[in-house]
Amino acid sequence: MTTATAAHSDIKDPNLAGVGKKRILWADQDMPVLARVRERFEKEQPLAGLRMSACLHVTAETANLVRTLKAGGADVMLIASNPLSTQDDVAASLVHDFDIKVNAIHGEDNNTYYKHIAAALAFEPNITMDDGADLVSSMVFIALDRLDDVHPMVREWAAKFSATERKSKFDNVIGSMEETTTGVIRLRAMEKDGVLQFPVIAVNDAATKHMFDNRYGTGQSTLDGIIRGTNCLMAGKRVVVAGYGWCGKGVASRARGLGAQVIVTEVNAVAALEAAMDGFAVMPMAEAAKVADVFITVTGNKHIVRREHFAAMKDGAMVCNSGHFDVELDLPGLQAETASISRDVRPQVDEYKLHNGNRIYVIGQGRLVNLAMAEGHPPSVMDMSFATQAMATEYCIRQKGKLGKAVYTVPVEVEEYVAITKLASMGIHIDSLSDDQSKYLSGWEHGT
Amino acid sequence: MTTATAAHSDIKDPNLAGVGKKRILWADQDMPVLARVRERFEKEQPLAGLRMSACLHVTAETANLVRTLKAGGADVMLIASNPLSTQDDVAASLVHDFDIKVNAIHGEDNNTYYKHIAAALAFEPNITMDDGADLVSSMVFIALDRLDDVHPMVREWAAKFSATERKSKFDNVIGSMEETTTGVIRLRAMEKDGVLQFPVIAVNDAATKHMFDNRYGTGQSTLDGIIRGTNCLMAGKRVVVAGYGWCGKGVASRARGLGAQVIVTEVNAVAALEAAMDGFAVMPMAEAAKVADVFITVTGNKHIVRREHFAAMKDGAMVCNSGHFDVELDLPGLQAETASISRDVRPQVDEYKLHNGNRIYVIGQGRLVNLAMAEGHPPSVMDMSFATQAMATEYCIRQKGKLGKAVYTVPVEVEEYVAITKLASMGIHIDSLSDDQSKYLSGWEHGT
Amino acid sequence: MTTATAAHSDIKDPNLAGVGKKRILWADQDMPVLARVRERFEKEQPLAGLRMSACLHVTAETANLVRTLKAGGADVMLIASNPLSTQDDVAASLVHDFDIKVNAIHGEDNNTYYKHIAAALAFEPNITMDDGADLVSSMVFIALDRLDDVHPMVREWAAKFSATERKSKFDNVIGSMEETTTGVIRLRAMEKDGVLQFPVIAVNDAATKHMFDNRYGTGQSTLDGIIRGTNCLMAGKRVVVAGYGWCGKGVASRARGLGAQVIVTEVNAVAALEAAMDGFAVMPMAEAAKVADVFITVTGNKHIVRREHFAAMKDGAMVCNSGHFDVELDLPGLQAETASISRDVRPQVDEYKLHNGNRIYVIGQGRLVNLAMAEGHPPSVMDMSFATQAMATEYCIRQKGKLGKAVYTVPVEVEEYVAITKLASMGIHIDSLSDDQSKYLSGWEHGT
Amino acid sequence: MTTATAAHSDIKDPNLAGVGKKRILWADQDMPVLARVRERFEKEQPLAGLRMSACLHVTAETANLVRTLKAGGADVMLIASNPLSTQDDVAASLVHDFDIKVNAIHGEDNNTYYKHIAAALAFEPNITMDDGADLVSSMVFIALDRLDDVHPMVREWAAKFSATERKSKFDNVIGSMEETTTGVIRLRAMEKDGVLQFPVIAVNDAATKHMFDNRYGTGQSTLDGIIRGTNCLMAGKRVVVAGYGWCGKGVASRARGLGAQVIVTEVNAVAALEAAMDGFAVMPMAEAAKVADVFITVTGNKHIVRREHFAAMKDGAMVCNSGHFDVELDLPGLQAETASISRDVRPQVDEYKLHNGNRIYVIGQGRLVNLAMAEGHPPSVMDMSFATQAMATEYCIRQKGKLGKAVYTVPVEVEEYVAITKLASMGIHIDSLSDDQSKYLSGWEHGT
Repeated sequence: MTTATAAHSDIKDPNLAGVGKKRILWADQDMPVLARVRERFEKEQPLAGLRMSACLHVTAETANLVRTLKAGGADVMLIASNPLSTQDDVAASLVHDFDIKVNAIHGEDNNTYYKHIAAALAFEPNITMDDGADLVSSMVFIALDRLDDVHPMVREWAAKFSATERKSKFDNVIGSMEETTTGVIRLRAMEKDGVLQFPVIAVNDAATKHMFDNRYGTGQSTLDGIIRGTNCLMAGKRVVVAGYGWCGKGVASRARGLGAQVIVTEVNAVAALEAAMDGFAVMPMAEAAKVADVFITVTGNKHIVRREHFAAMKDGAMVCNSGHFDVELDLPGLQAETASISRDVRPQVDEYKLHNGNRIYVIGQGRLVNLAMAEGHPPSVMDMSFATQAMATEYCIRQKGKLGKAVYTVPVEVEEYVAITKLASMGIHIDSLSDDQSKYLSGWEHGT
Repeated sequence: MTTATAAHSDIKDPNLAGVGKKRILWADQDMPVLARVRERFEKEQPLAGLRMSACLHVTAETANLVRTLKAGGADVMLIASNPLSTQDDVAASLVHDFDIKVNAIHGEDNNTYYKHIAAALAFEPNITMDDGADLVSSMVFIALDRLDDVHPMVREWAAKFSATERKSKFDNVIGSMEETTTGVIRLRAMEKDGVLQFPVIAVNDAATKHMFDNRYGTGQSTLDGIIRGTNCLMAGKRVVVAGYGWCGKGVASRARGLGAQVIVTEVNAVAALEAAMDGFAVMPMAEAAKVADVFITVTGNKHIVRREHFAAMKDGAMVCNSGHFDVELDLPGLQAETASISRDVRPQVDEYKLHNGNRIYVIGQGRLVNLAMAEGHPPSVMDMSFATQAMATEYCIRQKGKLGKAVYTVPVEVEEYVAITKLASMGIHIDSLSDDQSKYLSGWEHGT
Repeated sequence: MTTATAAHSDIKDPNLAGVGKKRILWADQDMPVLARVRERFEKEQPLAGLRMSACLHVTAETANLVRTLKAGGADVMLIASNPLSTQDDVAASLVHDFDIKVNAIHGEDNNTYYKHIAAALAFEPNITMDDGADLVSSMVFIALDRLDDVHPMVREWAAKFSATERKSKFDNVIGSMEETTTGVIRLRAMEKDGVLQFPVIAVNDAATKHMFDNRYGTGQSTLDGIIRGTNCLMAGKRVVVAGYGWCGKGVASRARGLGAQVIVTEVNAVAALEAAMDGFAVMPMAEAAKVADVFITVTGNKHIVRREHFAAMKDGAMVCNSGHFDVELDLPGLQAETASISRDVRPQVDEYKLHNGNRIYVIGQGRLVNLAMAEGHPPSVMDMSFATQAMATEYCIRQKGKLGKAVYTVPVEVEEYVAITKLASMGIHIDSLSDDQSKYLSGWEHGT
Repeated sequence: MTTATAAHSDIKDPNLAGVGKKRILWADQDMPVLARVRERFEKEQPLAGLRMSACLHVTAETANLVRTLKAGGADVMLIASNPLSTQDDVAASLVHDFDIKVNAIHGEDNNTYYKHIAAALAFEPNITMDDGADLVSSMVFIALDRLDDVHPMVREWAAKFSATERKSKFDNVIGSMEETTTGVIRLRAMEKDGVLQFPVIAVNDAATKHMFDNRYGTGQSTLDGIIRGTNCLMAGKRVVVAGYGWCGKGVASRARGLGAQVIVTEVNAVAALEAAMDGFAVMPMAEAAKVADVFITVTGNKHIVRREHFAAMKDGAMVCNSGHFDVELDLPGLQAETASISRDVRPQVDEYKLHNGNRIYVIGQGRLVNLAMAEGHPPSVMDMSFATQAMATEYCIRQKGKLGKAVYTVPVEVEEYVAITKLASMGIHIDSLSDDQSKYLSGWEHGT
């Protein structure tokens, strides 16, 4: 740990470093693609001399990503992208064992959360990395001089500059990476509104990211979070999965795989049909509310489970969210139906006793249940996401000056490299096209 | 049946019309979306006065599509898109009960197949509909004056015109619809080579087509074809699925659903990884050949199972294809390893006795096994594909003059209409976005 | 074919023998365990000099069983155990190519059915083989002098003898084999009532029979029958499986495997709980009737789907039975709700138009749907059942005189032989216990 | 807590009682059948005046069982059935909040384990309850005067009595309950050897126990233990499940449900065939060792994974046991191949670096992975097992004097009560037999 690192860090307890290091190295064993990228970065130093602010879930897997960025030459500051997702031991080890600047404390309040965002901005990064677009949106508000729209902690920092300075504050940012569906939706909205300040790479949209991380990662870890949180048997339970995007497909598949009877709710007709043809029951939330035992939201939208739904639920229903923001469950709506709350009847499980006498259990306060109650996505799947992240960062830098203020996709070569390297690490060999077959695929002259 | 219809038709046996009609009406009961489109077409007559040549599998489901086109005002000629996929009873009924011109005979030889293509061209259609792009590619060759590249039967017709006439022969074609992955790949290659003569709508690429038809339709009907063809127990069998695109996903899922142990082969690393994470064994064909009991190709490419693979197979291995063209199995390669062939040890199942003493069973001569051995995709799923087809045709006509010589996608409104109508027919209700939620999705200002 | 065989046979059409032989030999290829038993029987002649009457589904698989019995030295007469399950081509080939006496015609009426039973009795068998206990129950009625309870065709034969003769008519029967759950239930009821006339081996109760045949065989072939019969897409369908015994588990698993949303109905609480924990919806038939698209009965009981259920069904509901007897659907009850019937809207699919305007489709007249609409269980699984049958017959003969008038189970050595031989034929090797491990399992002294 | 309870207890830390009570009450909410039994026991006092020693996993679920026994009037002493399965907070709460005598400390050494067994014997119980038969086997050794075969801590207590006293030491024991497959196998071996001292009820053999607890409970909790222990992604992993009994079926099904590619090893041919037909790969351990990523033993036998298997494994292989005793992994054999061990690279995960350079990870020291790494079976499934236990205890007392020194099964009425009550608690209704149907099932006269 250098003095600079210590000065720029805000963590829970440095004494946790030992445990955290073990966890980081354990995860590293299951992240072979990222390790190979890191080896190359060490030699080639593609990020040399650049400052990076990364707003991510501070987990053992993320630790291996920032180690890779640092190996590539970057000076990295890591902050939390969610108040409940920081693993304090990992944060401690990053600072003390790996000389990474970290501002993240598990369970931090909103003020601290935004104080850390301000720190990430004050770091004057050349590259940012985002998980939900909280960092980029703060930058956009500042550049637009909409200081009323940013949190007071961020405003305090921004106010140090004149409006003119703020306007060009982020002109030197080469680009930003975004790894959530939610964040990409926000960023495309910014692009549409013409307010993006720099290029963004939609890492989430890479097949090697969303098809694996969102589906298999969210699928397993969401169920893991619920089971660790409640120790409930999934077999025979009626489980509502709200949303049948990649995350929803993963969660529904894993819930069924554990013996649950799954109900899908959707607003999109094509996705709803797909769920029905996959053998799931499909119905509106108002109907599902009456019959289900467990509710999981993964929509990327707000107020999916609302006051009237809570009021209709059975006694003992359990409710959680695995979408990025904690707005999917309308907790104020629940509160309006509630006579009394018992906090932590299990750790981080709150019992809401409704006016109608029923008890509703909210797991992890409506925040990402896989990170609040368990350890988030397993390293093996984050290996792919983060190798894609690291290589997208390298690509973004190499494209410096050639990209506009827009949302870009990850080049297909990156996806191919990641997929091929992952397969190799799993000991899986596949076929390759013969010349004859390649030619066949590119031609149109052949027929019946 | 009008005199014109009789004059323009070539079918097996008109006496089959009674049976065929029953099958058409049976299928119609499970095609409610198409029925609704047909009702509207009857009133609005969007295709009035147009001639259409449709090159499709002549099945009961297709019959209901052409009935719909005719209801919309078109004068329709239907020809077969595959020598083995025609249901002769359906063809008979179309001619006799529904006054549709049909040129299609089950088991027709290549000469007859192309004679029928010539008839479809001679019909001078304003709109064409294709299943594998055989019709369009013939038109392209003619327009390019590459008569050596077309079948003699087609050449005979084309030779009636001068080179100049041929060049502009298809100028009046408003557009064509294509409903296979294979066909779309060919058409994009034509577009890339600058030889497309008119706009094409890639109906296959509509979510309401490929996500359902290619996956659930091909999935069930391929296994159905194999079981009808061989009566083999799938439970405990090692089944190779070559290709993990939409069709491959469907076939692999259904084979597993019947208790098989599925092995996937792929050339694409991302698809291979997806198969592995879905719990399938993934390996090269050369390894799979040695251990599997059943082989199914769904790649859209050629020579997936080759001479060396056949030579490596176990005694009793069964091999079939469910991809569009019959080139996926290298049957000449198999023949080169073969000492003797017993045809039809079961109907349409041929036993190849190899020089090494092993017996290999080829099902359906390597042609689409679901159409050769069973009835093709169930009407319920073709309902979506064909409603999309019919509405894409209407769209194409409405856009007359506005589209270039390129491949276009189906407008999202068509997909939405089809999906919503299908859900309704299944008695499924779904949620809809509140204004608040729509606004949330389109905004970017909210955050943690 | 000998003269005796011709004299003792009653089949549809001898000209079908060629096709039938092909099918018998095709099935034989997938019945390696039975083939090995047949080879041994040929050498050892354990059934030499015995007459056998076998009342079974006359299929290609059964043909290989009776070939085996004949190879063992028996003089075999085969009759149908169900009016709709006879494959006429197989019957023809058995008579003409394999010199087996056969009395069975597909679609035979009840009179013919019982005339054939009478023929089987008149054959004066030393051993009988039954599938539903129709043969044994006739013998019991005769021996008890309850001639009013047997069919007139059987009575006619029985009346040739005096009451005293009838009483001892079956004293020379060494034993009988029974291979259905339904039949075993009937036989145990006979044993309880003290009316069994000879020992019976409950072949059905062997693990190598019911765990495989009833589950994987009935599972696949029931869905196969429905799909061949209706060409309906299973994905997205709500399918009721009535009964969660071995057959029900198989059917439910395969329906889910094809993408259906499965509802189980049960009368047994433990089985109902098991279904729920396996992720299926469980509800009473009265509720299921209102929501489902397809109904399948496999209970072994009567009137599972009754008048009130038919009246509550949705328009277009499809109904079939895969239990042994055709009493599971209350067709008279359906008829009472029916305004008009259209027979064979698809082959063997009848449309009942109800007074309420809805249409109900009955598949295969409520008889075993897998045999009525498809080919019954695949040979691979019948291999195990019939190898068990053949070896149980041998065992029964070897125990002659040692068994009472009771229901016996198959000796465990038979099950082990069948399972080990089947695994070997599939190329599967397994572990074996070391001495140390065997000792551990038989001891109790070890502990924590 | 009474003085007697304090005097008879040995636990880790009384201060944990608060947390423990929360967990007990949380579990209680998901144990409605047991709660209903408890209510009745409170009124009827069927166990009044009896002393019980229960040797069980000391978990929140077990706590609710012993609360029930106490409610029924028993004076209960609870000891641990496994050194790693005790939840110290639960133990504390049982003593302090529920006045139960407890001797159990998480991670206790073998000496302490057997000291607690001695305490359970010294309690002079009228009824015992066992989980693996450690308590009963100690009693048998003592009664047989085989003091050399018991642990010194037990011997010390037994030595207080004369050989004659020891012989009749357990004459007053009314009976014992056993709830594991392993324990029942040991007890039947004792019965066979004629050494059982009192009647035993094989609670494990009740359908309401083994079909649910062993399958769904062990299935989910074993995977839960592995994931909590290692955070590894199951999707795409090759997972060996050794043993395809009820536990193995559950584990294999859940591993597949999470996306793993499952390999089953077996010594029983019928079970191996069943696994193959369920779509799993089946092979000997020697082959599986070379290709798998994760190994799970659930056989009830010893040394399933041996030295030669460890030596053949891939670098990074993870190994654990979910069978009752910790003998399934041959850890001494592993040690013989090992160059160095790093303990706790994750909590309770040990890294064995082999002489060949590969690293093998042993999870939970080879003890029951679901209890060592997670919380054991979920309450919902233990609800059924423990309601069966409690009612079997009541039955055993009611039968006092009528049962011999043998292993008995749970009466079917108990199973029915448990299943029906459980279904009701899940809001599931089922059909019931009409008189007509009951009569049909019990008769044999009906036929085709």
